[in-house]
Amino acid sequence: MDIIDRPQTPLLDTIEGPSDLKGRSHEELRAIADEVRAEMISAVSVTGGHLGAGLGVVELSVALHVVFDTPKDKVIWDVGHQCYPHKILTGRRDRIRTIRQGGGLSGFTKRAESAYDPFGAAHSSTSISAGLGFAVARDQKGESNNVIAVIGDGSMSAGMAYEAMNNAGAMDARLIVILNDNDMSIAPPTGAMSAYLARLVSGNTYRSVREGLKRVAQKLPPYWHKKAAQAEEFTRSFFTGGTMFEELGFYYVGPIDGHNLDHLLPVLENVRDAEQGPILVHVRTQKGKGYEPAESSADKYHGVSKFNVITGEQAKSKPNAPSYTRVFGQSLVREAEEDDRVVGVTAAMPSGTGIDLFGQAFPTRTFDVGIAEQHAVTFSAGMAADGMKPFCAIYSTFLQRGYDQVVHDVSIQNLPVRFPIDRAGLVGADGPTHAGSFDVAYLGCLPGFTIMAAGDEAELMHMVRTAAAYDEGPIAFRYPRGEGVGVDLPDRGSILEIGKGRIVKEGSTVAILSLGSRLKDALKAAERLEADGLSTTVADARFAKPLDVDLVTRLAREHEVLITVEEGSVGGFGSYVLHTLNDAALLDGRLKLATLTLPDVYLDQDKPEKMVAQAGLDADGIVASVFRLLGRDAVPTPAAIA
Amino acid sequence: MDIIDRPQTPLLDTIEGPSDLKGRSHEELRAIADEVRAEMISAVSVTGGHLGAGLGVVELSVALHVVFDTPKDKVIWDVGHQCYPHKILTGRRDRIRTIRQGGGLSGFTKRAESAYDPFGAAHSSTSISAGLGFAVARDQKGESNNVIAVIGDGSMSAGMAYEAMNNAGAMDARLIVILNDNDMSIAPPTGAMSAYLARLVSGNTYRSVREGLKRVAQKLPPYWHKKAAQAEEFTRSFFTGGTMFEELGFYYVGPIDGHNLDHLLPVLENVRDAEQGPILVHVRTQKGKGYEPAESSADKYHGVSKFNVITGEQAKSKPNAPSYTRVFGQSLVREAEEDDRVVGVTAAMPSGTGIDLFGQAFPTRTFDVGIAEQHAVTFSAGMAADGMKPFCAIYSTFLQRGYDQVVHDVSIQNLPVRFPIDRAGLVGADGPTHAGSFDVAYLGCLPGFTIMAAGDEAELMHMVRTAAAYDEGPIAFRYPRGEGVGVDLPDRGSILEIGKGRIVKEGSTVAILSLGSRLKDALKAAERLEADGLSTTVADARFAKPLDVDLVTRLAREHEVLITVEEGSVGGFGSYVLHTLNDAALLDGRLKLATLTLPDVYLDQDKPEKMVAQAGLDADGIVASVFRLLGRDAVPTPAAIA
Repeated sequence: MDIIDRPQTPLLDTIEGPSDLKGRSHEELRAIADEVRAEMISAVSVTGGHLGAGLGVVELSVALHVVFDTPKDKVIWDVGHQCYPHKILTGRRDRIRTIRQGGGLSGFTKRAESAYDPFGAAHSSTSISAGLGFAVARDQKGESNNVIAVIGDGSMSAGMAYEAMNNAGAMDARLIVILNDNDMSIAPPTGAMSAYLARLVSGNTYRSVREGLKRVAQKLPPYWHKKAAQAEEFTRSFFTGGTMFEELGFYYVGPIDGHNLDHLLPVLENVRDAEQGPILVHVRTQKGKGYEPAESSADKYHGVSKFNVITGEQAKSKPNAPSYTRVFGQSLVREAEEDDRVVGVTAAMPSGTGIDLFGQAFPTRTFDVGIAEQHAVTFSAGMAADGMKPFCAIYSTFLQRGYDQVVHDVSIQNLPVRFPIDRAGLVGADGPTHAGSFDVAYLGCLPGFTIMAAGDEAELMHMVRTAAAYDEGPIAFRYPRGEGVGVDLPDRGSILEIGKGRIVKEGSTVAILSLGSRLKDALKAAERLEADGLSTTVADARFAKPLDVDLVTRLAREHEVLITVEEGSVGGFGSYVLHTLNDAALLDGRLKLATLTLPDVYLDQDKPEKMVAQAGLDADGIVASVFRLLGRDAVPTPAAIA
Repeated sequence: MDIIDRPQTPLLDTIEGPSDLKGRSHEELRAIADEVRAEMISAVSVTGGHLGAGLGVVELSVALHVVFDTPKDKVIWDVGHQCYPHKILTGRRDRIRTIRQGGGLSGFTKRAESAYDPFGAAHSSTSISAGLGFAVARDQKGESNNVIAVIGDGSMSAGMAYEAMNNAGAMDARLIVILNDNDMSIAPPTGAMSAYLARLVSGNTYRSVREGLKRVAQKLPPYWHKKAAQAEEFTRSFFTGGTMFEELGFYYVGPIDGHNLDHLLPVLENVRDAEQGPILVHVRTQKGKGYEPAESSADKYHGVSKFNVITGEQAKSKPNAPSYTRVFGQSLVREAEEDDRVVGVTAAMPSGTGIDLFGQAFPTRTFDVGIAEQHAVTFSAGMAADGMKPFCAIYSTFLQRGYDQVVHDVSIQNLPVRFPIDRAGLVGADGPTHAGSFDVAYLGCLPGFTIMAAGDEAELMHMVRTAAAYDEGPIAFRYPRGEGVGVDLPDRGSILEIGKGRIVKEGSTVAILSLGSRLKDALKAAERLEADGLSTTVADARFAKPLDVDLVTRLAREHEVLITVEEGSVGGFGSYVLHTLNDAALLDGRLKLATLTLPDVYLDQDKPEKMVAQAGLDADGIVASVFRLLGRDAVPTPAAIA
């Protein structure tokens, strides 16, 4: 899109940082907010990214930077989906059209990017814990800055947020929590807390305003009393609702209209000037606010591809193959038709995991627990202990949050919980916080755990069926983000033999043993090697655990070179192959072996194929490894020639 | 202790299982409860184990098995510290004096042990999630059993319990949660929830009984109304307090005197017969109840060694060396004296981690966050981001619960949080749920993470100082449960060079490279090998990451045999050594290599030295590995001779 399409932003053009917001009239600030909104819509229309969340906090972002002395005052945005207006206002507007692109701004807050991002995020519900850490550090150092955590209502379903409130309330720490309540997270929220917030907003909570005021009057120092009265007119109930937060030791303020600066500014000023703490400010906002196509869509344009600003129509790249996510969802439906013990569990990611498809087919067998991975895992373990077949579908990176539950409740008890692990490997624009790098390492060390990885989407179908049939213990199957490779799909998957891989292509000199998503590149690499006179076998391990010892040792015995390749960290599949070959005394100087894994650094966001190349896990990387082992100079690869 | 010391238990002797409790008078049940208490005190006096928690739930255990139809009805004990009376009543009395011993009963609930243990535990706060899983499975199958989760107030500080309540409340699932409120966990509880429960018990909550009753009357069906009236006399407020639980969608009943069967039985009957769900029954109990020495001690005899029943005096084995835990605590105090940025964090384990010693010296720099490992980690990350030096002391097995926070908040941001990891490796009587087997695998895969392991208690001192000095990123140091090896201790530790190991003993044929706690056995093995004519080098790796590549490759080049040994799973140190040697082309058929790790099974509890032997990680195991690699028959070892 050309620069002439950009919105006119005369006021915003004068804002180089938050200090330029100070001393402005409410009217000017309102106009600036409108320009921020227009700028953000324009920018995301060319980059794609998270739109709805940011649109909902434009006024809040302006107000926070007006009222507080950032970056000395620490504003911590939970998750970070909503940080685009904040980035625009804090000196990063010139790069806002690089967001989520290779070399560009991160789509989330990031310490390395700006002093205005005191704590990075991307996973949910960390902000109150981090904020309490900043508050305590401030007190230890005898400093006086404010700490503000901005957290969405969806994030409040995570236990971590409760743990943090439970501590902040008991410590009486001076900490401001802004509850950004838009009745949405990525999907509509679930859980009792969500219902509670709705009752708070409707004024239909149990305690009467009068009773609350009386109690507050007894407890508050006179200064607050006066301030409270001033601000009260802007809030439904200043210090009079939110019992649950009060029971946890917070002062509760709200609900406030989060799009009205005339309300936001004085309330935030009062909160800033208060000596008490912790304070929870309940702000009502509308996800997608101010952009009609977003407001009227079901997902509020949570995450979008490039779109037409006028119509709101998103560019849809024509897929070459169905996504792994969709194949998983459809396969699970297929298996559930055959076995009514199959149930599906998601932690607030129904569409991301494909559980939405399952939910359409089997609504009463589908459980969205909210952002609550710990509960999701043990809830599934409980169901498995009573004879059900739970598929607990959690992204690789988010399963980290249920790790102890996987170990303690599932693995030690050897319960047959099925873990479909989407987003295994590099994920592109979401960057390092969302990469699924560690699951094989952190699951593979657990005794009795079966781990599969799908080489293509038909393999995924087999793995869904295999997992449904397998009742002897926990079983996981990992698959990458994005489209499949375009293979033909059967009507239904087949049951795989546990611990057996497959030879995809027979050769004699080089063997490439792929786990999961790298299979396609392994085959490409084989083509090039063959063209170079190196007869190449390609095998698909299928199982990281139990490892196919016969296959591995056979590949080692019958080839000069063995390359393992996986989209995962050290300590996983490649390590198991090394142990197996060492135990079998096959590392005897005859075999040339390389174990290709993700590098030991966090890779910044970029196009997925570039990230894979950077990691040395694409066809070029595999070929280069083979040549390195054979002591040859690298030959020009097609990519290098092109 | 002789059998004649055992208490007279004429009634209990007739109880082979819960069915024998049915139809008894309250008077008989009270007498049975007294006998269970006496039996339990007698048993634990000879085995050691968890005493206080069980004593607190004797009447509750009896009442649950009287009122509910176990094992068809599922009673899920949270953590399991309190399960001894339950085991006595459910057919395991004959083995109760084997508890926590090798080959004996587990100290926790365990599915493999009894149908009366529908879900095992040992880590805290899992019971409501598991219970909801059972409740949903029941409903899916169209069955009608009850599900009862019994959870302590200390366990309520964990986010997982909140996640589960948030879901149970919203699903309106028929589930009974018994909140066993003894105002204690292992240590006195912290957090706002704990204060809230105290207010509930004191009747000093915000809502009036009258208001609550009015509201309840409007909502309840007539049946409940009548039942409520019957039971109301036994509770301070039947359905009228516990706003916070009500806001989460639970019916609240309580508080009830948990030692009075005349109160417990009718209330539990009412709850059992109710159609509503979920219900939270708030039961007040006294930890250590009925045994004076326990009641009057500060820790309520939470965990005891063998003791004299009459005096309560616990057998104290004379330590040969200070415990690693104590050395850690004292060293941290020493470092904190030099640097006021050092702060200590524990998740409800002040004495278990040695943070209690730090807290005595620096109370305002010590933070016990309760059972809330997720928060502990990110709270520490927040402090580190603002310039403090947090030592976040969590057992290896419990750090699993903060894993995502370690990855996302600490590692990706490269924040210098220090992780002292106690109980790394096998832990003896607590068994597989408490073994610290996986930390090297799950931390070592994270880019930029530094991981040390202490070979003895002086090394631990160096590592505390090294961690205090190291500001470049996250750093962990692991050390085992129990006593040190008895080396001389310096006044203060020294700063170690990052990524450098040390040669402890020079030899020429065999090299043993130990990580952490296995050093002593490595030295013993070396003695035996030397006696057998094999000149042996012993090296202490000190760092699992970054690995001392120079040391590893030198050992490989200069010896015929290399054995790595660690008290950890596959995917950790041994794997890194394999990758390093393969990358250096040193696996060339000349070197004979074995990587000794914990076996790929969960080891049941036993004496620590027996567990280590079973794992093949003691001196015998190391020697046997060397001989195996050299193709020799095993020679008789001193242990085998003796």
